[in-house]
Amino acid sequence: MQGGWGDGYIAVDWGTSNRRAYRVDAGGAMLQEMQDDRGVTKLAPGTYPDEIADLRRRLGPLPLVLAGMVGSNRGWHQAPYIPCPAGAADLCAGVLWPQEDVALLPGVSFAQKGNFDVMRGEELQLLGAAAAGFLPADVLVCHPGTHTKWAHCTDGRIDNFQTSMTGELFALLCHHSILADRLQGAVAVGEDFDAGVAYALKANPLDALFGIRARYLLKGPPRNDAAYVSGLLIGSDIRRGLDQALPVAVMGGPALTELYARAFALAGQTVACIDGAKAFLAGVRLVVERL
Amino acid sequence: MQGGWGDGYIAVDWGTSNRRAYRVDAGGAMLQEMQDDRGVTKLAPGTYPDEIADLRRRLGPLPLVLAGMVGSNRGWHQAPYIPCPAGAADLCAGVLWPQEDVALLPGVSFAQKGNFDVMRGEELQLLGAAAAGFLPADVLVCHPGTHTKWAHCTDGRIDNFQTSMTGELFALLCHHSILADRLQGAVAVGEDFDAGVAYALKANPLDALFGIRARYLLKGPPRNDAAYVSGLLIGSDIRRGLDQALPVAVMGGPALTELYARAFALAGQTVACIDGAKAFLAGVRLVVERL
Repeated sequence: MQGGWGDGYIAVDWGTSNRRAYRVDAGGAMLQEMQDDRGVTKLAPGTYPDEIADLRRRLGPLPLVLAGMVGSNRGWHQAPYIPCPAGAADLCAGVLWPQEDVALLPGVSFAQKGNFDVMRGEELQLLGAAAAGFLPADVLVCHPGTHTKWAHCTDGRIDNFQTSMTGELFALLCHHSILADRLQGAVAVGEDFDAGVAYALKANPLDALFGIRARYLLKGPPRNDAAYVSGLLIGSDIRRGLDQALPVAVMGGPALTELYARAFALAGQTVACIDGAKAFLAGVRLVVERL
Repeated sequence: MQGGWGDGYIAVDWGTSNRRAYRVDAGGAMLQEMQDDRGVTKLAPGTYPDEIADLRRRLGPLPLVLAGMVGSNRGWHQAPYIPCPAGAADLCAGVLWPQEDVALLPGVSFAQKGNFDVMRGEELQLLGAAAAGFLPADVLVCHPGTHTKWAHCTDGRIDNFQTSMTGELFALLCHHSILADRLQGAVAVGEDFDAGVAYALKANPLDALFGIRARYLLKGPPRNDAAYVSGLLIGSDIRRGLDQALPVAVMGGPALTELYARAFALAGQTVACIDGAKAFLAGVRLVVERL
């Protein structure tokens, strides 16, 4: 640490579309939080010093820890990817300091036998959840989102992981496909979501998509097709978490966590649900103690 | 028939994005063909009379048979859907005559046990191929495209069918996804297409998508990712044609037919390949004889 964490710090989960920032005291307690849509795709690299100054005006004159896509080639500075297996000490070794008192955290990568994967931001939540005792020592963690991460974590390290584009596929179908006008409803757990999950647990979910349009054209019974498609895609996604002889935890925002937990329940598997924001703050704390 | 087919006719396969038109003599021989991009999404309903006049200027002062999306709610007039099982006589019963000497053919629908599906245009190819002796009496026909049709045909009728959005999903990924800049290569049969098919034959193809981006970011070996994704999606699609104890035929344009046939070959199944344009003309002939 170049400055000092003695007065606390600001932790920022700076993503592609949004960012969340938290003021944390020296003991690790969260004092203030804010969220807005100033994700990296809306910012030019040269504007980050102003953004940092603005965050300090709003949350206090404190050192900052930045995680997520802010460290990607679309963000401020490109921080490295730390290869798996990766723990807190490994992450700290890859920190960049674009300004004094501003730590920019690296991401994590996985490459083995022709399989490649990367994450930025979720690693802090994974390591934080493990350090805070939210996870068993050997666990498969599902972190749902635009790009859902499935990480195998053991003894406080990320051993390997794989990303599915579940959230992005859902968005593509909602915004750009021939089904778009059928997919404008609100997604929530219910009969139609369950029907999608049930289909995907026994068949190829892609086979069910066009039938949504045909059902409408042929005046079939009404349905919340957005919830149905969400069920199809999430039901397909969770199949990789079944029958692995590993406990499974779902960690993220409450809405997506509930959908994934419901899909697992329909498949007969109980999962633990973990608050992603709490895990993130635990992860930042873990890093700050080592910088 | 309101006019007469004695001098031959013009057959038009009028799709969403493109149209193909053929001048055919009274004996069914194709004399002239043309193709352009004046699909129904580029035309307002009121412009069709001018389009018909223009087709006659280019191909001759003949009666016309129109099939495909021109008969949909996005086309000229909405022709009905004929429910499965559907044969040539059933189609003829649903023909509209928007002008004298212009026959607009219906589509075909399937609805059973909560499953719904529709087709417009492919039905002529299916019935034509059967009538021309291109198909065995009991066969699963794959008609690849933006919306790939899988039709079970017996004794010259379409018994049931299901549509997969394989081509549309590929286009969504190429044009709108985070992978778009990796998917600008030409798709052709080869090592990368084969690798995609092999993956999809044993695992969920959606699981492999994000790895394309990670492979690039982590400087993995170069690959034609467009061919790989095409292999993933087509490999997933053909799984429904495997182990059905039915002969399978692939019918469509030469490029897609080759890709599907290759995917089937990698799965250990031999398929017949049928020229979609010939099947279409045989289908139009079949209808013209009954109007």
